[in-house]
Amino acid sequence: MRRPRILVTNDDGINAPGIKALVDIAKQYGDPFVVAPDSPQSGQGHAITITKPLFLKKVDVFEGIEAYECSGTPADCVKLAKNVLLKDDTIDLCVSGINHGSNASINIIYSGTMSAAMEASLEGIRSIGFSLLDFSFEADFSAAKHFGSMIIEKMLAYNSKKNILLNVNIPKLPTKEIKGIKICEQGEGVWTEDFKESQDPRGQKYYWLTGSFDADLENTKSDLWALRNGYVSIVPSQHNLTDYESMDSLKNFEK
Amino acid sequence: MRRPRILVTNDDGINAPGIKALVDIAKQYGDPFVVAPDSPQSGQGHAITITKPLFLKKVDVFEGIEAYECSGTPADCVKLAKNVLLKDDTIDLCVSGINHGSNASINIIYSGTMSAAMEASLEGIRSIGFSLLDFSFEADFSAAKHFGSMIIEKMLAYNSKKNILLNVNIPKLPTKEIKGIKICEQGEGVWTEDFKESQDPRGQKYYWLTGSFDADLENTKSDLWALRNGYVSIVPSQHNLTDYESMDSLKNFEK
Repeated sequence: MRRPRILVTNDDGINAPGIKALVDIAKQYGDPFVVAPDSPQSGQGHAITITKPLFLKKVDVFEGIEAYECSGTPADCVKLAKNVLLKDDTIDLCVSGINHGSNASINIIYSGTMSAAMEASLEGIRSIGFSLLDFSFEADFSAAKHFGSMIIEKMLAYNSKKNILLNVNIPKLPTKEIKGIKICEQGEGVWTEDFKESQDPRGQKYYWLTGSFDADLENTKSDLWALRNGYVSIVPSQHNLTDYESMDSLKNFEK
Repeated sequence: MRRPRILVTNDDGINAPGIKALVDIAKQYGDPFVVAPDSPQSGQGHAITITKPLFLKKVDVFEGIEAYECSGTPADCVKLAKNVLLKDDTIDLCVSGINHGSNASINIIYSGTMSAAMEASLEGIRSIGFSLLDFSFEADFSAAKHFGSMIIEKMLAYNSKKNILLNVNIPKLPTKEIKGIKICEQGEGVWTEDFKESQDPRGQKYYWLTGSFDADLENTKSDLWALRNGYVSIVPSQHNLTDYESMDSLKNFEK
Protein backbone atom coordinates (compact mmCIF):
# COMPACT_ATOMS: atom_id res chain seq x y z
CA MET A 1 0.00 0.00 0.00
CA ARG A 2 1.17 3.49 -0.87
CA ARG A 3 2.14 5.62 2.13
CA PRO A 4 0.02 8.77 2.51
CA ARG A 5 1.54 11.90 1.00
CA ILE A 6 1.50 14.71 3.56
CA LEU A 7 2.04 18.30 2.43
CA VAL A 8 3.73 20.29 5.21
CA THR A 9 3.75 24.08 5.35
CA ASN A 10 3.69 26.92 7.87
CA ASP A 11 3.78 30.69 8.25
CA ASP A 12 6.83 31.14 10.49
CA GLY A 13 9.12 30.19 7.58
CA ILE A 14 10.93 27.01 6.58
CA ASN A 15 13.66 27.49 9.19
CA ALA A 16 11.33 27.79 12.21
CA PRO A 17 11.58 25.04 14.86
CA GLY A 18 7.81 24.44 14.64
CA ILE A 19 7.86 23.08 11.08
CA LYS A 20 10.77 20.79 11.99
CA ALA A 21 8.61 19.33 14.77
CA LEU A 22 5.72 18.85 12.33
CA VAL A 23 7.91 17.10 9.73
CA ASP A 24 9.13 14.77 12.51
CA ILE A 25 5.55 13.73 13.26
CA ALA A 26 4.39 13.55 9.63
CA LYS A 27 7.16 11.13 8.63
CA GLN A 28 5.88 8.57 11.12
CA TYR A 29 2.61 8.34 9.18
CA GLY A 30 3.49 9.06 5.59
CA ASP A 31 5.78 10.78 3.12
CA PRO A 32 6.12 14.48 3.96
CA PHE A 33 6.56 16.96 1.11
CA VAL A 34 7.47 20.45 2.31
CA VAL A 35 6.68 23.80 0.65
CA ALA A 36 7.03 26.69 3.08
CA PRO A 37 7.73 30.44 2.99
CA ASP A 38 11.38 31.50 2.84
CA SER A 39 10.71 34.09 5.58
CA PRO A 40 8.24 34.60 8.44
CA GLN A 41 4.70 35.50 7.34
CA SER A 42 2.85 36.00 10.62
CA GLY A 43 -0.38 37.97 10.42
CA GLN A 44 -0.66 37.36 6.69
CA GLY A 45 -4.28 36.21 6.90
CA HIS A 46 -5.39 34.60 3.66
CA ALA A 47 -3.08 36.69 1.49
CA ILE A 48 -2.25 35.43 -1.99
CA THR A 49 0.28 36.95 -4.37
CA ILE A 50 -1.25 38.13 -7.61
CA THR A 51 0.70 41.26 -8.52
CA LYS A 52 4.19 39.74 -8.70
CA PRO A 53 5.91 36.48 -9.61
CA LEU A 54 6.72 33.72 -7.13
CA PHE A 55 10.02 31.88 -6.79
CA LEU A 56 10.55 28.32 -5.58
CA LYS A 57 13.87 26.89 -4.45
CA LYS A 58 14.61 23.26 -3.62
CA VAL A 59 16.32 23.11 -0.23
CA ASP A 60 17.94 20.48 1.96
CA VAL A 61 16.52 21.41 5.35
CA PHE A 62 14.91 18.15 6.51
CA GLU A 63 17.06 15.06 6.08
CA GLY A 64 15.80 12.83 3.27
CA ILE A 65 12.65 14.92 2.71
CA GLU A 66 11.83 16.79 -0.51
CA ALA A 67 11.45 20.44 0.47
CA TYR A 68 11.00 23.82 -1.26
CA GLU A 69 11.13 27.36 0.02
CA CYS A 70 8.81 29.85 -1.61
CA SER A 71 8.95 33.63 -1.89
CA GLY A 72 5.20 33.92 -1.27
CA THR A 73 2.61 33.54 1.46
CA PRO A 74 1.43 30.31 3.16
CA ALA A 75 -1.60 30.14 0.81
CA ASP A 76 0.74 30.59 -2.18
CA CYS A 77 2.80 27.61 -0.94
CA VAL A 78 -0.24 25.34 -0.99
CA LYS A 79 -1.32 26.54 -4.44
CA LEU A 80 2.18 25.95 -5.86
CA ALA A 81 2.47 22.52 -4.23
CA LYS A 82 -0.84 21.36 -5.65
CA ASN A 83 -0.74 23.02 -9.07
CA VAL A 84 2.95 23.09 -9.99
CA LEU A 85 5.06 20.67 -7.95
CA LEU A 86 2.67 17.77 -7.34
CA LYS A 87 0.37 18.32 -10.29
CA ASP A 88 -0.54 14.70 -10.94
CA ASP A 89 0.03 13.33 -7.48
CA THR A 90 -2.45 13.00 -4.70
CA ILE A 91 -2.03 14.95 -1.50
CA ASP A 92 -3.70 12.91 1.23
CA LEU A 93 -3.36 15.46 3.98
CA CYS A 94 -2.00 18.98 4.44
CA VAL A 95 -0.57 19.99 7.82
CA SER A 96 0.43 23.55 8.67
CA GLY A 97 2.52 24.78 11.61
CA ILE A 98 3.39 24.13 14.28
CA ASN A 99 2.76 27.83 14.79
CA HIS A 100 4.62 29.69 17.49
CA GLY A 101 1.58 31.30 19.20
CA SER A 102 -2.17 30.77 19.52
CA ASN A 103 -4.59 30.67 16.60
CA ALA A 104 -7.62 29.98 18.76
CA SER A 105 -10.87 31.99 18.60
CA ILE A 106 -11.00 34.85 16.07
CA ASN A 107 -7.25 34.59 15.54
CA ILE A 108 -8.05 32.05 12.81
CA ILE A 109 -9.02 35.11 10.72
CA TYR A 110 -5.55 36.70 10.98
CA SER A 111 -3.57 33.47 10.86
CA GLY A 112 -1.16 32.57 8.08
CA THR A 113 -0.93 29.04 9.52
CA MET A 114 -4.68 28.56 9.21
CA SER A 115 -4.81 30.29 5.81
CA ALA A 116 -2.57 27.54 4.41
CA ALA A 117 -4.82 24.87 5.93
CA MET A 118 -7.90 26.72 4.64
CA GLU A 119 -6.39 26.99 1.16
CA ALA A 120 -5.78 23.23 1.10
CA SER A 121 -9.37 22.70 2.20
CA LEU A 122 -10.66 24.97 -0.60
CA GLU A 123 -8.60 22.86 -3.00
CA GLY A 124 -10.32 19.71 -1.72
CA ILE A 125 -7.51 18.53 0.55
CA ARG A 126 -8.16 17.44 4.14
CA SER A 127 -6.06 19.63 6.40
CA ILE A 128 -4.95 20.54 9.91
CA GLY A 129 -3.36 23.70 11.29
CA PHE A 130 -1.37 23.26 14.53
CA SER A 131 -0.47 26.06 16.92
CA LEU A 132 1.33 26.02 20.26
CA LEU A 133 0.50 28.72 22.81
CA ASP A 134 4.14 29.78 23.12
CA PHE A 135 5.64 32.59 21.04
CA SER A 136 9.22 31.77 21.99
CA PHE A 137 11.64 30.56 19.32
CA GLU A 138 12.91 28.12 21.98
CA ALA A 139 9.40 26.79 22.68
CA ASP A 140 9.16 23.18 23.88
CA PHE A 141 7.28 21.23 21.19
CA SER A 142 7.15 17.89 23.01
CA ALA A 143 3.46 18.13 24.03
CA ALA A 144 2.55 19.47 20.59
CA LYS A 145 4.34 16.48 19.00
CA HIS A 146 2.66 14.01 21.33
CA PHE A 147 -0.89 15.23 20.67
CA GLY A 148 -0.16 16.20 17.06
CA SER A 149 0.81 12.58 16.33
CA MET A 150 -2.45 11.30 17.75
CA ILE A 151 -4.49 13.78 15.72
CA ILE A 152 -2.68 13.12 12.43
CA GLU A 153 -3.11 9.36 12.93
CA LYS A 154 -6.86 9.78 13.56
CA MET A 155 -7.25 12.17 10.61
CA LEU A 156 -5.62 9.69 8.21
CA ALA A 157 -7.99 6.97 9.46
CA TYR A 158 -11.09 9.20 9.50
CA ASN A 159 -13.62 7.96 7.00
CA SER A 160 -15.70 10.75 5.48
CA LYS A 161 -16.28 12.16 2.03
CA LYS A 162 -16.76 15.59 3.54
CA ASN A 163 -13.72 17.78 3.50
CA ILE A 164 -12.39 18.30 7.01
CA LEU A 165 -10.35 21.28 8.21
CA LEU A 166 -9.13 21.33 11.81
CA ASN A 167 -7.81 24.25 13.86
CA VAL A 168 -5.72 22.60 16.60
CA ASN A 169 -4.24 24.59 19.49
CA ILE A 170 -1.99 23.16 22.19
CA PRO A 171 -1.61 24.76 25.62
CA LYS A 172 1.85 25.71 26.90
CA LEU A 173 2.12 22.85 29.40
CA PRO A 174 4.22 19.72 29.88
CA THR A 175 2.62 16.69 28.16
CA LYS A 176 1.64 14.99 31.40
CA GLU A 177 -0.19 18.09 32.66
CA ILE A 178 -2.44 18.26 29.58
CA LYS A 179 -5.84 16.77 30.45
CA GLY A 180 -6.83 15.58 26.97
CA ILE A 181 -8.26 16.69 23.63
CA LYS A 182 -11.61 18.46 23.17
CA ILE A 183 -13.68 19.10 20.02
CA CYS A 184 -14.71 22.77 20.41
CA GLU A 185 -16.52 25.73 18.92
CA GLN A 186 -14.58 28.82 17.86
CA GLY A 187 -14.57 31.02 20.99
CA GLU A 188 -15.38 34.71 21.13
CA GLY A 189 -12.74 37.24 22.02
CA VAL A 190 -11.76 40.81 21.37
CA TRP A 191 -8.40 42.37 20.67
CA THR A 192 -7.86 45.63 22.52
CA GLU A 193 -5.36 47.33 20.30
CA ASP A 194 -2.71 49.74 21.24
CA PHE A 195 -0.36 51.36 18.76
CA LYS A 196 3.05 52.29 20.08
CA GLU A 197 3.90 55.70 18.61
CA SER A 198 7.47 56.68 17.86
CA GLN A 199 9.62 58.40 15.23
CA ASP A 200 11.84 56.95 12.55
CA PRO A 201 15.45 58.20 12.14
CA ARG A 202 14.18 60.94 9.80
CA GLY A 203 11.68 62.23 12.34
CA GLN A 204 8.60 60.74 10.71
CA LYS A 205 5.97 59.50 13.13
CA TYR A 206 5.13 55.81 13.01
CA TYR A 207 2.73 53.39 14.70
CA TRP A 208 3.52 49.83 15.72
CA LEU A 209 0.69 47.44 16.49
CA THR A 210 0.48 45.85 19.90
CA GLY A 211 -2.50 44.78 21.95
CA SER A 212 -4.03 42.36 24.38
CA PHE A 213 -6.64 39.68 23.82
CA ASP A 214 -9.71 39.49 26.02
CA ALA A 215 -11.08 35.96 25.92
CA ASP A 216 -14.70 35.09 26.64
CA LEU A 217 -14.33 32.13 29.00
CA GLU A 218 -18.05 31.73 29.75
CA ASN A 219 -18.70 29.34 26.87
CA THR A 220 -17.45 25.96 28.11
CA LYS A 221 -17.75 24.54 24.57
CA SER A 222 -15.19 27.02 23.21
CA ASP A 223 -11.56 26.50 22.31
CA LEU A 224 -10.63 29.35 24.65
CA TRP A 225 -12.22 27.55 27.62
CA ALA A 226 -10.56 24.23 26.69
CA LEU A 227 -7.11 25.78 26.40
CA ARG A 228 -7.45 27.75 29.65
CA ASN A 229 -8.45 24.52 31.38
CA GLY A 230 -5.53 22.44 30.16
CA TYR A 231 -6.97 20.73 27.07
CA VAL A 232 -5.80 20.60 23.48
CA SER A 233 -8.59 22.25 21.41
CA ILE A 234 -9.77 21.12 17.98
CA VAL A 235 -12.20 23.40 16.14
CA PRO A 236 -13.55 21.83 12.93
CA SER A 237 -13.67 24.80 10.58
CA GLN A 238 -15.13 25.75 7.19
CA HIS A 239 -15.24 28.59 4.70
CA ASN A 240 -18.89 29.63 4.57
CA LEU A 241 -19.14 32.98 6.38
CA THR A 242 -22.88 33.52 5.78
CA ASP A 243 -24.68 34.99 8.80
CA TYR A 244 -27.82 32.88 8.30
CA GLU A 245 -29.45 34.28 11.48
CA SER A 246 -29.55 37.81 10.09
CA MET A 247 -30.97 36.94 6.66
CA ASP A 248 -34.64 37.32 7.56
CA SER A 249 -34.24 40.63 9.37
CA LEU A 250 -32.53 42.08 6.28
CA LYS A 251 -35.34 41.18 3.87
CA ASN A 252 -36.44 44.82 3.63
CA PHE A 253 -33.11 45.60 1.93
CA GLU A 254 -34.43 43.67 -1.06
CA LYS A 255 -36.20 45.35 -3.91
CA MET B 1 -28.77 65.73 15.47
CA ARG B 2 -25.21 64.66 14.78
CA ARG B 3 -24.59 63.35 11.26
CA PRO B 4 -23.38 59.73 11.13
CA ARG B 5 -19.62 59.33 10.91
CA ILE B 6 -18.76 56.95 8.07
CA LEU B 7 -15.29 55.43 7.88
CA VAL B 8 -14.36 54.80 4.24
CA THR B 9 -11.56 52.46 3.19
CA ASN B 10 -10.67 50.04 0.40
CA ASP B 11 -7.98 47.69 -0.89
CA ASP B 12 -7.31 49.16 -4.34
CA GLY B 13 -5.59 52.18 -2.75
CA ILE B 14 -6.66 55.72 -1.99
CA ASN B 15 -6.30 56.85 -5.62
CA ALA B 16 -8.59 54.18 -7.13
CA PRO B 17 -11.81 55.39 -8.81
CA GLY B 18 -13.88 52.98 -6.67
CA ILE B 19 -13.18 54.74 -3.36
CA LYS B 20 -13.99 58.10 -4.95
CA ALA B 21 -17.41 56.71 -5.91
CA LEU B 22 -17.92 55.41 -2.35
CA VAL B 23 -17.01 58.77 -0.77
CA ASP B 24 -19.50 60.45 -3.12
CA ILE B 25 -22.28 58.21 -1.79
CA ALA B 26 -21.21 58.35 1.86
CA LYS B 27 -21.28 62.14 2.00
CA GLN B 28 -24.99 62.15 1.13
CA TYR B 29 -25.72 60.31 4.38
CA GLY B 30 -23.06 61.40 6.82
CA ASP B 31 -19.53 62.68 7.38
CA PRO B 32 -17.01 60.48 5.60
CA PHE B 33 -13.59 59.97 7.18
CA VAL B 34 -11.14 58.22 4.86
CA VAL B 35 -8.20 55.97 5.82
CA ALA B 36 -7.02 53.87 2.88
CA PRO B 37 -3.85 52.11 1.71
CA ASP B 38 -1.29 54.21 -0.15
CA SER B 39 -0.97 51.46 -2.80
CA PRO B 40 -3.09 48.59 -4.17
CA GLN B 41 -3.50 45.64 -1.75
CA SER B 42 -5.53 43.15 -3.78
CA GLY B 43 -5.44 39.57 -2.54
CA GLN B 44 -4.23 40.65 0.89
CA GLY B 45 -6.87 38.61 2.71
CA HIS B 46 -7.05 39.54 6.36
CA ALA B 47 -3.39 40.51 6.59
CA ILE B 48 -2.31 42.77 9.43
CA THR B 49 1.12 44.33 9.86
CA ILE B 50 2.86 43.24 13.04
CA THR B 51 6.54 43.00 12.11
CA LYS B 52 7.08 46.58 10.97
CA PRO B 53 5.86 50.11 11.73
CA LEU B 54 2.99 51.81 9.92
CA PHE B 55 2.96 55.33 8.51
CA LEU B 56 -0.05 57.62 8.12
CA LYS B 57 -0.13 60.72 5.93
CA LYS B 58 -2.91 63.29 5.77
CA VAL B 59 -3.87 63.84 2.13
CA ASP B 60 -6.15 66.12 0.17
CA VAL B 61 -7.73 63.67 -2.26
CA PHE B 62 -11.46 64.17 -1.67
CA GLU B 63 -12.60 67.80 -1.57
CA GLY B 64 -13.50 68.89 1.96
CA ILE B 65 -13.10 65.40 3.43
CA GLU B 66 -10.53 64.43 6.07
CA ALA B 67 -8.44 61.66 4.52
CA TYR B 68 -5.29 59.68 5.36
CA GLU B 69 -3.19 57.27 3.35
CA CYS B 70 -1.61 54.40 5.22
CA SER B 71 1.43 52.25 4.45
CA GLY B 72 -0.36 49.10 5.65
CA THR B 73 -3.14 46.73 4.68
CA PRO B 74 -6.91 47.42 4.60
CA ALA B 75 -7.31 45.82 8.07
CA ASP B 76 -4.47 48.04 9.37
CA CYS B 77 -6.35 51.12 8.07
CA VAL B 78 -9.42 50.23 10.12
CA LYS B 79 -7.36 49.52 13.25
CA LEU B 80 -5.53 52.86 12.93
CA ALA B 81 -8.74 54.79 12.26
CA LYS B 82 -10.45 53.38 15.33
CA ASN B 83 -7.53 53.26 17.75
CA VAL B 84 -5.33 56.20 16.75
CA LEU B 85 -7.16 58.76 14.61
CA LEU B 86 -10.73 58.61 15.97
CA LYS B 87 -9.95 57.24 19.41
CA ASP B 88 -12.76 58.96 21.29
CA ASP B 89 -15.21 59.37 18.45
CA THR B 90 -17.91 57.02 17.38
CA ILE B 91 -17.78 55.38 13.98
CA ASP B 92 -21.39 54.71 12.98
CA LEU B 93 -20.62 52.73 9.85
CA CYS B 94 -17.60 51.48 7.94
CA VAL B 95 -17.80 51.11 4.17
CA SER B 96 -15.07 49.47 2.09
CA GLY B 97 -14.59 49.57 -1.67
CA ILE B 98 -15.96 49.96 -4.19
CA ASN B 99 -13.71 47.09 -5.22
CA HIS B 100 -12.75 46.68 -8.86
CA GLY B 101 -13.75 42.99 -9.25
CA SER B 102 -16.02 40.42 -7.59
CA ASN B 103 -15.81 39.39 -3.96
CA ALA B 104 -18.73 36.99 -4.17
CA SER B 105 -18.64 33.37 -2.99
CA ILE B 106 -15.35 32.13 -1.48
CA ASN B 107 -13.58 35.23 -2.77
CA ILE B 108 -14.53 36.87 0.53
CA ILE B 109 -11.70 34.77 2.02
CA TYR B 110 -9.05 36.35 -0.25
CA SER B 111 -10.50 39.83 -0.29
CA GLY B 112 -8.76 42.88 1.13
CA THR B 113 -11.98 44.86 0.68
CA MET B 114 -13.91 42.43 2.84
CA SER B 115 -11.06 42.09 5.35
CA ALA B 116 -11.42 45.81 6.13
CA ALA B 117 -15.18 45.40 6.57
CA MET B 118 -14.60 42.26 8.68
CA GLU B 119 -12.03 44.07 10.82
CA ALA B 120 -14.54 46.86 11.51
CA SER B 121 -17.11 44.22 12.43
CA LEU B 122 -14.66 42.53 14.83
CA GLU B 123 -14.15 45.96 16.42
CA GLY B 124 -17.90 46.30 16.94
CA ILE B 125 -18.59 48.58 13.97
CA ARG B 126 -21.41 47.87 11.53
CA SER B 127 -19.89 47.56 8.08
CA ILE B 128 -20.37 46.96 4.36
CA GLY B 129 -17.95 45.88 1.65
CA PHE B 130 -18.90 46.86 -1.92
CA SER B 131 -17.53 45.22 -5.07
CA LEU B 132 -18.32 45.79 -8.72
CA LEU B 133 -17.91 42.88 -11.16
CA ASP B 134 -15.59 44.88 -13.39
CA PHE B 135 -11.79 44.80 -13.04
CA SER B 136 -11.24 47.76 -15.34
CA PHE B 137 -9.75 50.97 -13.96
CA GLU B 138 -12.28 52.75 -16.22
CA ALA B 139 -15.22 50.79 -14.80
CA ASP B 140 -18.61 52.53 -14.82
CA PHE B 141 -19.63 52.96 -11.16
CA SER B 142 -23.09 54.46 -11.81
CA ALA B 143 -25.09 51.31 -10.98
CA ALA B 144 -22.85 50.65 -7.97
CA LYS B 145 -23.51 54.20 -6.73
CA HIS B 146 -27.25 53.90 -7.30
CA PHE B 147 -27.64 50.64 -5.35
CA GLY B 148 -24.85 51.47 -2.89
CA SER B 149 -26.79 54.61 -1.85
CA MET B 150 -29.92 52.60 -1.17
CA ILE B 151 -28.02 50.04 0.90
CA ILE B 152 -26.11 52.61 2.98
CA GLU B 153 -29.36 54.47 3.69
CA LYS B 154 -31.06 51.24 4.84
CA MET B 155 -28.05 50.21 6.92
CA LEU B 156 -28.01 53.54 8.79
CA ALA B 157 -31.72 53.13 9.53
CA TYR B 158 -31.48 49.41 10.42
CA ASN B 159 -32.38 48.90 14.05
CA SER B 160 -30.53 46.00 15.64
CA LYS B 161 -28.09 45.55 18.48
CA LYS B 162 -26.45 42.71 16.58
CA ASN B 163 -23.39 43.64 14.63
CA ILE B 164 -24.07 43.47 10.91
CA LEU B 165 -21.48 42.88 8.17
CA LEU B 166 -22.60 42.89 4.54
CA ASN B 167 -20.79 41.57 1.47
CA VAL B 168 -22.37 43.49 -1.43
CA ASN B 169 -21.58 42.67 -5.07
CA ILE B 170 -22.93 44.59 -8.06
CA PRO B 171 -23.19 43.04 -11.54
CA LYS B 172 -21.50 44.74 -14.48
CA LEU B 173 -24.71 46.09 -16.01
CA PRO B 174 -26.31 49.47 -16.65
CA THR B 175 -28.50 50.55 -13.69
CA LYS B 176 -31.78 50.07 -15.56
CA GLU B 177 -30.89 46.48 -16.50
CA ILE B 178 -30.33 45.45 -12.87
CA LYS B 179 -33.40 43.59 -11.61
CA GLY B 180 -33.09 44.44 -7.92
CA ILE B 181 -31.32 43.50 -4.70
CA LYS B 182 -31.30 40.00 -3.14
CA ILE B 183 -30.27 38.82 0.35
CA CYS B 184 -28.18 35.70 -0.40
CA GLU B 185 -26.08 32.90 0.99
CA GLN B 186 -22.36 32.71 0.19
CA GLY B 187 -22.19 30.60 -2.98
CA GLU B 188 -19.87 27.70 -3.63
CA GLY B 189 -17.18 27.90 -6.26
CA VAL B 190 -13.73 26.58 -7.05
CA TRP B 191 -10.69 28.35 -8.45
CA THR B 192 -8.88 26.30 -11.06
CA GLU B 193 -5.40 27.66 -10.80
CA ASP B 194 -2.83 27.93 -13.43
CA PHE B 195 0.65 29.28 -12.88
CA LYS B 196 2.27 30.96 -15.83
CA GLU B 197 5.91 29.87 -15.86
CA SER B 198 8.64 32.11 -17.16
CA GLN B 199 12.17 33.32 -16.40
CA ASP B 200 13.39 36.54 -14.84
CA PRO B 201 16.18 38.57 -16.53
CA ARG B 202 18.78 36.51 -14.61
CA GLY B 203 17.38 33.21 -15.89
CA GLN B 204 15.62 32.23 -12.67
CA LYS B 205 12.34 30.43 -13.16
CA TYR B 206 9.22 32.10 -11.75
CA TYR B 207 5.51 31.37 -11.43
CA TRP B 208 2.72 33.90 -11.78
CA LEU B 209 -0.74 33.06 -10.49
CA THR B 210 -3.64 33.04 -12.88
CA GLY B 211 -6.79 30.98 -12.93
CA SER B 212 -10.48 30.71 -13.66
CA PHE B 213 -13.42 30.53 -11.28
CA ASP B 214 -16.02 27.81 -11.63
CA ALA B 215 -19.24 28.98 -10.04
CA ASP B 216 -21.89 26.62 -8.70
CA LEU B 217 -25.07 28.13 -10.15
CA GLU B 218 -27.45 25.40 -8.90
CA ASN B 219 -28.16 27.09 -5.57
CA THR B 220 -30.71 29.80 -6.38
CA LYS B 221 -30.22 31.31 -2.91
CA SER B 222 -26.54 32.04 -3.58
CA ASP B 223 -24.83 35.32 -4.41
CA LEU B 224 -23.40 33.68 -7.55
CA TRP B 225 -26.88 32.88 -8.85
CA ALA B 226 -28.18 36.38 -8.04
CA LEU B 227 -25.29 38.09 -9.82
CA ARG B 228 -25.53 35.84 -12.87
CA ASN B 229 -29.24 36.64 -13.06
CA GLY B 230 -28.87 40.41 -12.93
CA TYR B 231 -29.36 41.13 -9.21
CA VAL B 232 -27.20 42.97 -6.70
CA SER B 233 -26.25 40.37 -4.04
CA ILE B 234 -26.01 41.03 -0.31
CA VAL B 235 -24.52 38.25 1.84
CA PRO B 236 -24.79 38.97 5.57
CA SER B 237 -21.49 37.64 6.89
CA GLN B 238 -19.83 36.81 10.22
CA HIS B 239 -16.55 35.59 11.66
CA ASN B 240 -17.39 32.24 13.27
CA LEU B 241 -15.86 29.55 11.03
CA THR B 242 -16.87 26.56 13.19
CA ASP B 243 -18.02 23.56 11.15
CA TYR B 244 -20.82 22.62 13.57
CA GLU B 245 -22.02 19.75 11.34
CA SER B 246 -18.76 17.86 11.69
CA MET B 247 -18.42 18.17 15.47
CA ASP B 248 -20.25 14.96 16.38
CA SER B 249 -18.45 12.79 13.86
CA LEU B 250 -15.10 13.94 15.29
CA LYS B 251 -15.91 12.99 18.90
CA ASN B 252 -13.57 9.98 18.73
CA PHE B 253 -10.66 12.43 18.37
CA GLU B 254 -11.26 13.35 22.02
CA LYS B 255 -9.45 11.73 24.86
